[in-house]
Amino acid sequence: MTDTRHAVPERSREELLRLRRAHLNPTLSVAYREPLKIVRGEGVWLYDAQGQGYLDMVNNVCHVGHCHPRVVRAGAEQMARLNTNTRYLHDALVEYALRLTATLPAPLSVVFLTNSGTEANDLALRLARAHTGARGTIVVDHAYHGHSPSMVELSPYKFNGRGGEGQADHVAVVPMPDAYRGAVRDAADAGPRYGRMLAGAIDELRARGHRPAAFYCESLLGCGGQVILPDGYLRQAFAQVRAAGGLCLSDEVQVGFGRVGDAMWAFEQQGVVPDILTLGKPIGNGHPMGAVVTTPEVATSFVTGMEYFNTFGGNPVSCAIGLAVLDVIEEENLMDNAVRVGEFLTAGLREIQARHPGIGDVRGRGLFIGAEFVSDAAARSPDPARARVVVEAMKARHVLLSTDGPDDNVLKIKPPIVFSRANAEEFLEKLDGVLGALPVG
Amino acid sequence: MTDTRHAVPERSREELLRLRRAHLNPTLSVAYREPLKIVRGEGVWLYDAQGQGYLDMVNNVCHVGHCHPRVVRAGAEQMARLNTNTRYLHDALVEYALRLTATLPAPLSVVFLTNSGTEANDLALRLARAHTGARGTIVVDHAYHGHSPSMVELSPYKFNGRGGEGQADHVAVVPMPDAYRGAVRDAADAGPRYGRMLAGAIDELRARGHRPAAFYCESLLGCGGQVILPDGYLRQAFAQVRAAGGLCLSDEVQVGFGRVGDAMWAFEQQGVVPDILTLGKPIGNGHPMGAVVTTPEVATSFVTGMEYFNTFGGNPVSCAIGLAVLDVIEEENLMDNAVRVGEFLTAGLREIQARHPGIGDVRGRGLFIGAEFVSDAAARSPDPARARVVVEAMKARHVLLSTDGPDDNVLKIKPPIVFSRANAEEFLEKLDGVLGALPVG
Repeated sequence: MTDTRHAVPERSREELLRLRRAHLNPTLSVAYREPLKIVRGEGVWLYDAQGQGYLDMVNNVCHVGHCHPRVVRAGAEQMARLNTNTRYLHDALVEYALRLTATLPAPLSVVFLTNSGTEANDLALRLARAHTGARGTIVVDHAYHGHSPSMVELSPYKFNGRGGEGQADHVAVVPMPDAYRGAVRDAADAGPRYGRMLAGAIDELRARGHRPAAFYCESLLGCGGQVILPDGYLRQAFAQVRAAGGLCLSDEVQVGFGRVGDAMWAFEQQGVVPDILTLGKPIGNGHPMGAVVTTPEVATSFVTGMEYFNTFGGNPVSCAIGLAVLDVIEEENLMDNAVRVGEFLTAGLREIQARHPGIGDVRGRGLFIGAEFVSDAAARSPDPARARVVVEAMKARHVLLSTDGPDDNVLKIKPPIVFSRANAEEFLEKLDGVLGALPVG
Repeated sequence: MTDTRHAVPERSREELLRLRRAHLNPTLSVAYREPLKIVRGEGVWLYDAQGQGYLDMVNNVCHVGHCHPRVVRAGAEQMARLNTNTRYLHDALVEYALRLTATLPAPLSVVFLTNSGTEANDLALRLARAHTGARGTIVVDHAYHGHSPSMVELSPYKFNGRGGEGQADHVAVVPMPDAYRGAVRDAADAGPRYGRMLAGAIDELRARGHRPAAFYCESLLGCGGQVILPDGYLRQAFAQVRAAGGLCLSDEVQVGFGRVGDAMWAFEQQGVVPDILTLGKPIGNGHPMGAVVTTPEVATSFVTGMEYFNTFGGNPVSCAIGLAVLDVIEEENLMDNAVRVGEFLTAGLREIQARHPGIGDVRGRGLFIGAEFVSDAAARSPDPARARVVVEAMKARHVLLSTDGPDDNVLKIKPPIVFSRANAEEFLEKLDGVLGALPVG
């Protein structure tokens, strides 16, 4: 009875939009011209209030599939047993730290648990400042590292975007190492050449009286437009930052946990080991959770007498869910799946590209893929209008996609990593149909 | 089978401590000289690995009782149905905003959902800066507002504590309005007199070239030592801040959601309405969740073109859990319980105080209570050693408590608000026994 009294009313989309406008964060956007009211998720599918299924190729959070029964069970069982903080001892907390660090190269052995990627990147900044005694921070153009005041300052995507307040004194920005559209294109040595650009950022900080505390770099550039770092980039960049006394941070909030398929962590392909790794989104398959992993040396520098206590971070429910996500990735061989389906998808996109001149570049690793729309293939002129039209047309065919990049012309493909070959075939067929129906360039 | 392969091993306390030291945040403290390994929670009880029950009087997060079945069911059901972000429409998100704002005075009608109190206070700072165009912030001495870089700067508890880097240029600190130990004691007009001290902080900011963006104030001082704001404090303080163009923020991360019993929100007793209210800890009974509630005017100032998107914030699972917490508070009449049991506890503590000179002050509202240990009642000399001994002795009698305050001599009482009269009787009897067994002063 009491349950009925407080049942959540079902409201129409119009009513929900009206109430959102009145009572919720007014800056929050809604996906699509005609918003979706999604009520159920399962695997790679989302279902609207009418029971219509949508193939979800956007969600890099519900990483092992929406409502994965193993993850749901782990969360539900632990919620019913105990949910408290880390000032008591608990088996799941220690086990999670052991299981997570077992996937990482040896020096990355100390774990801090948070509630989000933003909290992880914020804590990482405190670690870097404590270790180096410096304040300067170098970031990659168009990067996004979080929504806190400190992380907006480290996110060119935000501070140089609409409503942004520009670059702070302690921040320097290096160009995106984009071998398709950037200053260095199509060159075998693009990686080291972009890496050497760190020197300019270090000089710029020095001129403003700052030494570098940290270089923040996503291991694959997400908001930057699904950019794959060219070979040798991080090796060169890290060497220069370290020579200047700074720490190197790999932000894998968007791309970690086996999405790239050939490795658990995307930084591994670059042949480097960061000093700090930050994690979020996929870590709990949607449960609010994040983590920082660092070396004993950096962790020790943080022991100044001030405690870092995070009320919810590392609670037994989060740890049980985090463990279940690791279990599922391993037991269902999802990294193999990401390699196989990712290769099939990328090959299929390249085959479509060959027949549709509107796609200028197709790039990807595992199930992190981008397709860049251009109006002129030779000039590589961005075509955001076409990208937008394709996203809406695919939505009409019940496939969910999004766009990003400085010109908003890159189709972002980052589905739950249970995405199958059959799902990929459905997507490719529909995309081919959508592109074939569009007027040429 | 796969479940067995990845079952979490049960480890001894010694082994867990060893592994924590090797693989987890080295700044994280463990409660008690002999740490507890807690494996199960129910209502006001926590159970260790041997099945021993402990009466939990510390946990202000598992607000409606550990593992409340209604809250667990809401979370488990929604986890199995859908967990995605707020770019799709969802009934529970809108319903939560409506239910939450229905408990608040009219102008506080716009909700932003986050994953923690820290994220809420961080977002609030962005709102205040956007609305005022100013950077200055006034905080109360010994306050704690969060663990992010920006919030450590606003937390004298941290920046003036061990390992702290001192006060930032844009921050001014006002004295704790503590009518027992502060500069103004035992005066009927202590509230307005402490309130007038905001003028000094505003002047101090002005002298450093800052206008005030916001005054952050907990509605009851938690880390400050369970201090109840004297009557008239916020009215006077808010008036001065507003006259200087700043916004007034009530931080109810620790004390909100009916803990004070006579009101849902502790600020109400002061006869004011803040411009921004921040929420956390109890909001999800342990689920990682936080919120900012503000006025349409402040929210509108935040519409600058930059989106505030929080990956996990406002997801359907968090909203379902948040709704269940509101339901339980109402249906189980927990605010009435907080009043009745709180009054009984406070009266019982005062009766004990009359027989034990080591307790200098007993103060509280509802189930937010402090008892201050002193070595000399007339001089009010803090006695942290006695507070520590009492906490350990009570733990030996299976009652969990903690201490806080600038001198760490205040016994903090903030149990789940399902705490019953029988629980209170058990606590009072045990405390009386512990104090009677201690050597006098």
